[in-house]
Amino acid sequence: MDIRHEAHRTGPMPDATRPSLDALRKLTLPAPLALDCGESLEEVEIAYETWGELNADRTNAVLVCHALTGDQYPAGPNPLTGRGAWWPRLIGPGKPVDTRRFHVIATNVLGGCMGTTGPASSRPDGRPWGTDFPVITIADMVRAQRAFVDALGIDSLFCVLGGSMGGMQVMEWAVQAPEKVFCALPIASTARHSAQNIAFYEVGRQAIMADPDWCEGHYIARGRRPDRGLAVARMAAHITYVSESALKRKFDRDLQDRAATSFSFDADFQIESYLRHQGRSFVDRFDANSYLYVTRAMDYFDLGAAHGGRLANAFAGSPVRFCLFSFSSDWHYPPAEAMELTRALVAAGVDVSHIEIETDKGHDAFLLEEPGFEAAVAGFLDASARQRGLAG
Amino acid sequence: MDIRHEAHRTGPMPDATRPSLDALRKLTLPAPLALDCGESLEEVEIAYETWGELNADRTNAVLVCHALTGDQYPAGPNPLTGRGAWWPRLIGPGKPVDTRRFHVIATNVLGGCMGTTGPASSRPDGRPWGTDFPVITIADMVRAQRAFVDALGIDSLFCVLGGSMGGMQVMEWAVQAPEKVFCALPIASTARHSAQNIAFYEVGRQAIMADPDWCEGHYIARGRRPDRGLAVARMAAHITYVSESALKRKFDRDLQDRAATSFSFDADFQIESYLRHQGRSFVDRFDANSYLYVTRAMDYFDLGAAHGGRLANAFAGSPVRFCLFSFSSDWHYPPAEAMELTRALVAAGVDVSHIEIETDKGHDAFLLEEPGFEAAVAGFLDASARQRGLAG
Repeated sequence: MDIRHEAHRTGPMPDATRPSLDALRKLTLPAPLALDCGESLEEVEIAYETWGELNADRTNAVLVCHALTGDQYPAGPNPLTGRGAWWPRLIGPGKPVDTRRFHVIATNVLGGCMGTTGPASSRPDGRPWGTDFPVITIADMVRAQRAFVDALGIDSLFCVLGGSMGGMQVMEWAVQAPEKVFCALPIASTARHSAQNIAFYEVGRQAIMADPDWCEGHYIARGRRPDRGLAVARMAAHITYVSESALKRKFDRDLQDRAATSFSFDADFQIESYLRHQGRSFVDRFDANSYLYVTRAMDYFDLGAAHGGRLANAFAGSPVRFCLFSFSSDWHYPPAEAMELTRALVAAGVDVSHIEIETDKGHDAFLLEEPGFEAAVAGFLDASARQRGLAG
Repeated sequence: MDIRHEAHRTGPMPDATRPSLDALRKLTLPAPLALDCGESLEEVEIAYETWGELNADRTNAVLVCHALTGDQYPAGPNPLTGRGAWWPRLIGPGKPVDTRRFHVIATNVLGGCMGTTGPASSRPDGRPWGTDFPVITIADMVRAQRAFVDALGIDSLFCVLGGSMGGMQVMEWAVQAPEKVFCALPIASTARHSAQNIAFYEVGRQAIMADPDWCEGHYIARGRRPDRGLAVARMAAHITYVSESALKRKFDRDLQDRAATSFSFDADFQIESYLRHQGRSFVDRFDANSYLYVTRAMDYFDLGAAHGGRLANAFAGSPVRFCLFSFSSDWHYPPAEAMELTRALVAAGVDVSHIEIETDKGHDAFLLEEPGFEAAVAGFLDASARQRGLAG
């Protein structure tokens, strides 16, 4: 019997053909960043991008927060990976987040690997952090963003929006700095990671840490990369981003370029080929330690627990206008979680709408074509902008 | 920051303190076994166990088919692993499958690793099979069982029952040899693996094959074991066996022996500790290549496709009495799959009942305490036995 095991690349990223991380747009925070773990980080670099003009009053800024594997390029191509904008239908001229009206800002999260300081960065003394990097939280990510926005000279944001982990940052922004956020859109998100969420990400972390090329977290210093473990982690997580019915609709049991099963461990089924591709392509654009840190931040996220065990406490008296979105077939962060957040916001006397979009696309629906979602975002932002006195 | 990565054992199983596989009860099939892949296997050994007496007419035999990670010990302890019976509430004196009335037989499946011939076995010339073992199917497993039952001198079985992959074998038995099965109980099972099922098992296979200790499938000959990959595979699969609500009920976000999160990659949460334990303990009792082969057999299972694309064709004119069980919160093989099989059986004119048990325990409910399930099995078997003319 023939078993072909997909070859995995090892060794450093092939940077020669690409612009380097250093070429990306960055800002160094002016002061050390204090973290939830008790440590603090010096010379934190924030990689970012912007679209549209900041108005004279500096009141039209929209901060876009990215998900686990996202980056600071929701509205334009990533020059390093060559991948296109990840929210092309939502952000741009004439789009729901209209860049003719709003100044759109996106940053790579703290702990990320697209230019912002994280475990793949070097310490001030030049040695790579690896897993000596402190464990961070969603609140730490938002603290870094707040310091960054301050450094841009923007006193308050018209809007903060984001999907999945981006939605966690949106909620955290509204809690940390309610006076600096006019309106907030947490999308396909949750105020606390469930046991099942933690379980799936723990599988991914164990896959990475089981890879001998992880080198106990110090693979960069050793010139290696745990690509195989990271690919498995990505595959496991990816299943949770798609609904069972979408998998059936897209792949069912269809075979991949063959008329019959091969009686081997080849990717006989299209779903296998698809997943392997997801794993393989992911390792070219993501750092394994970043995956550990960012998933850990998500697991630690529990907004209610952080506020005396009652989610409503987190938002008491908040002036922020909320619009929540969930997607009916999302089993990663099900609509019930958005409903729980809605209840807490209403209990706290906060202005909130929750829209559940009917779709079979699962969690990833927030990144895909969903006209009802897009229309609602456009309407909510337009109404909020008029309320804020922004020109149409 | 301190990262403690759980140590993983490598090297051969510590057999010194245990009885060896050779000490288990076995039968060698008298003739070569022809397989779906076109190859055939010689000198196939079937490891098995029995409980209760075979009656003089040899009409009271009940064959129990095990799931992916099960074995031939549903009703008594496994002498090799020391683990107790895996169906203790269902099988035994006075239990629903009453061993005072029935002769219960269980075999380890073809491709398994508890004594039956599989990739961990040696070829007739003494070299370990590894991944040179032919890829097998559920139909091949049943062919091996049929040859085994023939060798025992039993012409027909009163009943075949099994859960999960065991249920696939039950269906396959009824299709291959309808005249040899009086009644059949497929439990928490499906007539075809879905794209999502394939996806989860593909993640597991990729985790195993990514482990350098897998040695391209020939780790036994090299004196190594891909324990880390197998543990990750088990962890990923295990999540699918438990419902989201059961994970919340049992673990939620409770911490493991600590008052606060550790800001590390330790198993802070009970769910993490539980999953790691599941992975670690699994590698002591299961062979990684067996995991590849048996999951592959499940992925290949599509009873309708094997019968002209129409599931009902598989059962046309069958005299077998069916009783199907599904569990409401089972998202691995949801109740809708049992309903589809029920429709096909009714369309084929076959006698069938389907009972959906209301439970929050998920797929694993079939192995746990479910009084409604147990009572229904008892009632169905008793009625069927009376119909068959078996003494009470």
